[in-house]
Amino acid sequence: MSAVLEYAKDNHDAFVSDLIALLRIPTVSTDPAYASDVARGAEWLADHMQGIGVDHVEVVRTEGHPIVYAEHLPHDDRPTVLIYGHYDVQPPDPVELWDSPPFEPTQKNNTLYARGACDDKGQMMMHVKAIESFLAVGEQPPVNLKFLIEGEEECGSPSLAPFIESHRDKLEADVVLISDTAMFAEDVPSITYGLRGLAYVEVELTGPNRDLHSGIYGGAVHNPANTLSRMIADLHDEDHRITVKGFYDNVIPLTEEERETFASLPFKPEEWLGEIGLSEAITEGDYSVKEAISARPTLDVNGLWSGYQGEGAKTVLPSKAGAKISCRLVPDQDPIEIAEKLKAHFETHVPDTMTLQFKNLHGGHPVLIDTSHPAMQAAADAIESVFGKEPYFTREGGSIPIVADFKRLLGLDSVLMGFGLNSDAIHSPNEHFGLDRYAKGIEASIRFQMEYNGA
Amino acid sequence: MSAVLEYAKDNHDAFVSDLIALLRIPTVSTDPAYASDVARGAEWLADHMQGIGVDHVEVVRTEGHPIVYAEHLPHDDRPTVLIYGHYDVQPPDPVELWDSPPFEPTQKNNTLYARGACDDKGQMMMHVKAIESFLAVGEQPPVNLKFLIEGEEECGSPSLAPFIESHRDKLEADVVLISDTAMFAEDVPSITYGLRGLAYVEVELTGPNRDLHSGIYGGAVHNPANTLSRMIADLHDEDHRITVKGFYDNVIPLTEEERETFASLPFKPEEWLGEIGLSEAITEGDYSVKEAISARPTLDVNGLWSGYQGEGAKTVLPSKAGAKISCRLVPDQDPIEIAEKLKAHFETHVPDTMTLQFKNLHGGHPVLIDTSHPAMQAAADAIESVFGKEPYFTREGGSIPIVADFKRLLGLDSVLMGFGLNSDAIHSPNEHFGLDRYAKGIEASIRFQMEYNGA
Repeated sequence: MSAVLEYAKDNHDAFVSDLIALLRIPTVSTDPAYASDVARGAEWLADHMQGIGVDHVEVVRTEGHPIVYAEHLPHDDRPTVLIYGHYDVQPPDPVELWDSPPFEPTQKNNTLYARGACDDKGQMMMHVKAIESFLAVGEQPPVNLKFLIEGEEECGSPSLAPFIESHRDKLEADVVLISDTAMFAEDVPSITYGLRGLAYVEVELTGPNRDLHSGIYGGAVHNPANTLSRMIADLHDEDHRITVKGFYDNVIPLTEEERETFASLPFKPEEWLGEIGLSEAITEGDYSVKEAISARPTLDVNGLWSGYQGEGAKTVLPSKAGAKISCRLVPDQDPIEIAEKLKAHFETHVPDTMTLQFKNLHGGHPVLIDTSHPAMQAAADAIESVFGKEPYFTREGGSIPIVADFKRLLGLDSVLMGFGLNSDAIHSPNEHFGLDRYAKGIEASIRFQMEYNGA
Repeated sequence: MSAVLEYAKDNHDAFVSDLIALLRIPTVSTDPAYASDVARGAEWLADHMQGIGVDHVEVVRTEGHPIVYAEHLPHDDRPTVLIYGHYDVQPPDPVELWDSPPFEPTQKNNTLYARGACDDKGQMMMHVKAIESFLAVGEQPPVNLKFLIEGEEECGSPSLAPFIESHRDKLEADVVLISDTAMFAEDVPSITYGLRGLAYVEVELTGPNRDLHSGIYGGAVHNPANTLSRMIADLHDEDHRITVKGFYDNVIPLTEEERETFASLPFKPEEWLGEIGLSEAITEGDYSVKEAISARPTLDVNGLWSGYQGEGAKTVLPSKAGAKISCRLVPDQDPIEIAEKLKAHFETHVPDTMTLQFKNLHGGHPVLIDTSHPAMQAAADAIESVFGKEPYFTREGGSIPIVADFKRLLGLDSVLMGFGLNSDAIHSPNEHFGLDRYAKGIEASIRFQMEYNGA
C-alpha cells in the first residue's frame, strides 16, 4: 500500500474529528438567521484547507453566501480536476424528530448522525482529506486540483453561475469531480453518467369573468376546472406516452447496451414500490421501472387548483383553474423548446370559451456523460480497487443544474462519484453517513487522482 | 276598487316606513356578534303583526335564532295558506362598497337601498301588509293564513326542518306561499314552478403514501393529479352529456309545451353571456341556454386541488388529488341515488394504483309544481290583474331546500311568487328593492287571497 493510502487509513479517526468540527457549524443557507454561521463555515473550511497545505485558498464574497475556492497546481503537464461540493446544509426541521441534535454530531454503530453528514459536508470533505493525505506524506497530488465549494446549493445556487461566468479562466480544467450523489446500494458502487433535465410550466384557464353560482349558471357555462382536467388528461395516451407534438423529437433512444445494463442492475421494483406504498408501476410503453425513472422523459402535474377547497360544500362554478406541470427531460431535449411545445399544445387545445395564461417557470438541461471519458474510466478503476467490484454506470432521474452549467459555461463534463445512500435521510431528520463509506470515499478520491494521471 | 286595495294604495308611504323600521335592525344571522339584533328583529316583527291585529303571534325559541310564527284562521271552510319568509339578512360586507350605509335605509328614485330590502324583508313584509289591509278596513282575509318567518335562512336554516317536523299539525295547510325569488325581468312577471336539486360530493385519490420527488420517482408512479383529471374529463361525452351510468334514468323529459314556453321567454343568451364575460355557451346536446340552466341536470367541478399551489416551481409528484363535484338535479332525480351513482362511477374507474375516498357532502331534492294547482292559478290571475299581463311560468336553476322540505315533511306544494329582480344586488353591496314592486307585491298578495278563495 502506498504511503498516502496508509496515511489515510491511519488517520481515519482524525479525519472523522475534522468532519465533526465542520458539522458543528449550522450552515443553513436558506434561513437568514444562520447567515453568520454560514460565513463561519466558509472560514473554517478555508482555514482548514490552508492548514493542511493547499497552495492557494480564498473565501470569495458573493451577493449571497461565500464561495470557498482553492487551487493546488503542482504540475504543468498533467490534467486539472475541478472538485465541486457545498458546505451549506438543509434546515434541520422538524428538529423534534431527530434522535440526537442535528448540529451535535453523534456516532452510533460506526455511523455519524448530523445535518450535512452526507449532504454534502461528508462527501465534500473526502476530497479535502485526499489531498491532505498526499501533502502529509510529502507528496504532491498526482493531478492539479481546483476546489469550488459553494454555500448556496440548498437554496438554488444563485451566486454560482455568475461566479463561474466571471471566472472562466480561473476555473479552466479538464473535468469536474463531484461527490454529491448516491451509490446504487450499500456495497453496490455506481457512477452516474446521466441526469434528467426539467421544463416546469404553469397554465391557468379563465372562463367566466367571476366565480358563478352553479345553480343559476350551471348547464351553459364551460367550466374551466372540467376543461383543464380534459386538457391534462389528453397529455398522455393509453400507453402513457406524452402526446405533446414533437415531445420525443430529440430524445436519444436508449441503446441495446444501456437497456441490458438497466436490466442487470440489482434493482427490485417491488421493493421500490412497496416503500412508497404502491403495488404497481405505470410506465411509458414497455420501459422498465428503472428505465422509466432514470432515462425516459416524463410529464407530471405538480399542482392543481380551482374553485373552493375548504371544508364542506360551496356551489361555485369557478372562473379559473390552474396547474403546475413539469417534464423531466433526457438528452437531447431542450427545456426551452419543450416549454414552447407545451405552450403550443395548450394553445391549440384551449376552447374558444376560455383564455389561457401560460408561464415558463423553470428549466434545466439534461446531461449525458460519455462513459469512455478518461476521467470516468479513472473513477471506475478507483472504485473497483476500493470496493473490489466494478461500479455500475447508472442514470439518475433527478436534475443537478450545476452539472449542466459546468458543461454549458465551461465546456466540462462532470464525474459523479457519489458515496451517499438513498437511506441516508438527507433533507430529513436523522441524516447520517456511514464512516466506512467516508473512508472508502477518501481512498477512492486518492486512487482516482492516481488513475486519472496514469490514463 | 275594493276598500282593501284602496287602503293599501293610500297607505303606501306608511307601509314603506314600516319596512324601513325593520330594515334598520341588522339581523345578520351568520355572525354571532349580531345575535341580539336578530332577536330584536324577531320581536319587532311579532309586535308589529300583533299590532295590526293578527290573531295569534309567537316568537319561538330555537337552538339558533328565533322563528316568528303567526296564525289568523277566521274560516272553517276555506283553504289555509302557509306564508314562508325570513327576517334575517346576509352580512353587509364589503361595507365600503355601499353608497349608503346598509342598515340606514335610503330612498333614491323610488328605490329603497338597504341590506334585506329585497331579500327577504321587503318581500316578506308584502304579505304582512296584505293582511293588515284586510284587517284595517274591518274585513277578514278571504283565506286562513299561517306565517312561518325564520331567522336563519342565510345560514342554512338549521332550526327550520326540526321545527317543521315537531309541529306538523300546527303547520297543516293547503299550500305554501313564498316571495323570495326573482321575476323574469322588470315588468315581466313570472312564477317559478321548478327548482333544481343538488348532489354534492367530494372525491380524493391517493397514490403513493407521501409526496414524492418528481425527478427520482417520475416516470413509473401513477400521478393522482393526472389520473383525477382523466376521471373528471371522462364524466362528460363530446355532446356534454354526463356519462355517469344511469344519471338520466329518472329525468322527466321537457314537454313540447315547456320547450315552446322556454323558446318564447324574453331571454337573450348573448346578453346573459356578455354579462359574465363570455361569447359562447356550451350546453348538453341541443338544449337552449335557458333550458340548460333551468331544467336540465348538470355536473360541475366546484373545487380542485393537488400538490403545490404556491409561487414558483416545486417538483413534487403529489400523493393526493381531490375535487368537489356537484350535480344540479331535475325531477325525478334523487340526490342520494345520484351520489351513489357518482360513487359507483368513480369506484369503477379508479385505477389499481390508487385508493379512492368518496364523501357525499350535501343533497337537495328538485322540485316541480303542477302549474294547474289552484293556488298556482290564483297566483297567476293575481299577477295578471296587477301587472296587466300574464306571468310566465318558469323553472329556476338553483335550489331552495325549504321548498323540497315543505313537500317532504308536510306534503305541501309551494307557490313561488317572487318580486325580486336579478339586478337587485341581493347578497351584494347596495341591495335595493323598487318601491313600485313593493306596492305591486302587496296588491298581488291581496288579490291572490281573493282569487284562491274563489277557486
